[in-house]
Amino acid sequence: MSRFFSEKYRELTPYTPGEQPKDTVYLKLNTNESPFPPSPLAQRYARDAADKLNLYSDPESTILKKAGSKVFGVKEDNLIFTNSSDETLNFAFMAFCDASTPAVYPDISYGFYSVFAAVHNEPAVIIPLKEDFTIDPADYYGCGGTVFIANPNAPTGILLPNEAVERILQNNPDNVVVIDEAYIDFGGESAVSLLSKYDNLLVIRTFSKSRSLAGGRLGIGIANESLIRDLKTIQYAMNPYNVNTMTMGAGTGALEDIEYFEKTRTAIIENRRILTDRLCALGFSVLPSSANFVFARHSAVSGETLYLKLKEKKILIRHFDQERIRDFNRITVGTLDQIEMLCSAISEILEETK
Amino acid sequence: MSRFFSEKYRELTPYTPGEQPKDTVYLKLNTNESPFPPSPLAQRYARDAADKLNLYSDPESTILKKAGSKVFGVKEDNLIFTNSSDETLNFAFMAFCDASTPAVYPDISYGFYSVFAAVHNEPAVIIPLKEDFTIDPADYYGCGGTVFIANPNAPTGILLPNEAVERILQNNPDNVVVIDEAYIDFGGESAVSLLSKYDNLLVIRTFSKSRSLAGGRLGIGIANESLIRDLKTIQYAMNPYNVNTMTMGAGTGALEDIEYFEKTRTAIIENRRILTDRLCALGFSVLPSSANFVFARHSAVSGETLYLKLKEKKILIRHFDQERIRDFNRITVGTLDQIEMLCSAISEILEETK
Repeated sequence: MSRFFSEKYRELTPYTPGEQPKDTVYLKLNTNESPFPPSPLAQRYARDAADKLNLYSDPESTILKKAGSKVFGVKEDNLIFTNSSDETLNFAFMAFCDASTPAVYPDISYGFYSVFAAVHNEPAVIIPLKEDFTIDPADYYGCGGTVFIANPNAPTGILLPNEAVERILQNNPDNVVVIDEAYIDFGGESAVSLLSKYDNLLVIRTFSKSRSLAGGRLGIGIANESLIRDLKTIQYAMNPYNVNTMTMGAGTGALEDIEYFEKTRTAIIENRRILTDRLCALGFSVLPSSANFVFARHSAVSGETLYLKLKEKKILIRHFDQERIRDFNRITVGTLDQIEMLCSAISEILEETK
Repeated sequence: MSRFFSEKYRELTPYTPGEQPKDTVYLKLNTNESPFPPSPLAQRYARDAADKLNLYSDPESTILKKAGSKVFGVKEDNLIFTNSSDETLNFAFMAFCDASTPAVYPDISYGFYSVFAAVHNEPAVIIPLKEDFTIDPADYYGCGGTVFIANPNAPTGILLPNEAVERILQNNPDNVVVIDEAYIDFGGESAVSLLSKYDNLLVIRTFSKSRSLAGGRLGIGIANESLIRDLKTIQYAMNPYNVNTMTMGAGTGALEDIEYFEKTRTAIIENRRILTDRLCALGFSVLPSSANFVFARHSAVSGETLYLKLKEKKILIRHFDQERIRDFNRITVGTLDQIEMLCSAISEILEETK
């Protein structure tokens, strides 16, 4: 750190993304990317924008709002598009938390929540998951802060049913409840259906997972018009032209190409079942996942050892050095070939460590 | 605003970007975009990335750092790439200003500086330009805050010579001096040449103007390694994967295609001379511009009237409703055809208002 760095951030621990190695070719099952390329329509719209980049992008993301309005069944004014769902989250931590409104979230969840609270100097109330890693909705009733719940949760993959989400909304009428649905397309009902009933609901979506656009950087916020206006105020005070024109094209194509979206997410759901069965057959306990990853532990090999030994074999999975989940690893659901490679490598490791 | 919006931002006035009309075809001379498309190489690299967007982008922007290192003659560790120079500025306001370190900038400058200070609740010290709209470097000596100077300045277009920049650096050894060089390629010497001598210098660049990538959203910070590390800490606490893969390609191509860069910026410099001559012949006073725009006023027609009458004729220029510059308009330097259209329309307006 330089001698000029503000004291505000001197103790700040930034987020640690999953490894993105550049030196060797790894099988990457560590950051929950889609194994499928973006929809051909998404690619085409993105490429079509390349010769017009001398002009600023549309700060209102109009074409995305039109396409998103159809897909999500909401009005255009219910949508904000961002440079990734991390940016939507960042705007939400800014807009809806402060010294008197803490951020409230589970102890085991997306690791970025605590970083956003820290960078904006906001208090955090951290609520432990139950022993079985599920969320008890009652823990959040009348919590007096802005609730952030990843649903399905990461890195567990466990889904909170929509009726539980609704009870949390009902029991926090004076606070915003943010449902971070990065993985919802792989197996849950979206809280977007509750939008008309609750003015305190903000649903966050990403194009990084089910729409194969992690490298395009595109996120969404879905909420009533008044919450969206607050987020737009933050956008226009930070980075008005936050979404570039190519990504706007890619996102529009990804929304319009419903057939490709259904085909690829169905394949991942099916592959998740196959991966889960294979891992169970190898002796793993696997939490019930509604996401494009599984969270698994093995009694014969520690989470860290498995992670390191797979890395030696050029396969990356994600290990979190956090107390309650140290025995686990998070493994992205890939193609059938990738599942085969992974399970062969794990078999070898289990043989070696016998 | 919603009833949930944090009190911190209830008085916040966001930045107002130049109009981006979607309903009609305007001649847009209001946001200083390049009239030339991006370099063919930039377009190719951007398109080449479209089928790989299912994978996350590289949070270290390695290919951009390699290309930038050559172009700017600095080490890769002296560079940070961002989702627009607005994002670099935002990170700098966060990293280097706080309650005890105000932001210091001219009264007439890039309008976003005051928004960044406001959104982060940082004090601002605003220093008037001299009567002739130039900066007196001595006004900034020992100012006790983080200095932000757009050079050439916007919306005036006036350049601060590098020796003046150096005196400001020398006389603020314990504060960061940010030189925002969005327009430097159109006629000034960059402060990057001072980098090895001053650990308090941060130079900010954009790809939006001289590299024809406004819609790609790409900015740079250039500074000693230690300042760059501070900015990276903020990046990793806000949006680690801030630059998407297509934009990384576009930016790399734009940096590598030096011939196209030279050809287009030279054309704009030449067209600026022509536009200035034409406006002077029409009776305008034009400030001496080193940017891709001119700042001009006419004794017979107010700034606002000219702006409104040109808008009726489907030509957009930028008018700022700010006391000292209300008589002026900022006009982007376009192609020769665009200059012709603009000057014909202005002639008509001057005839009408006689």
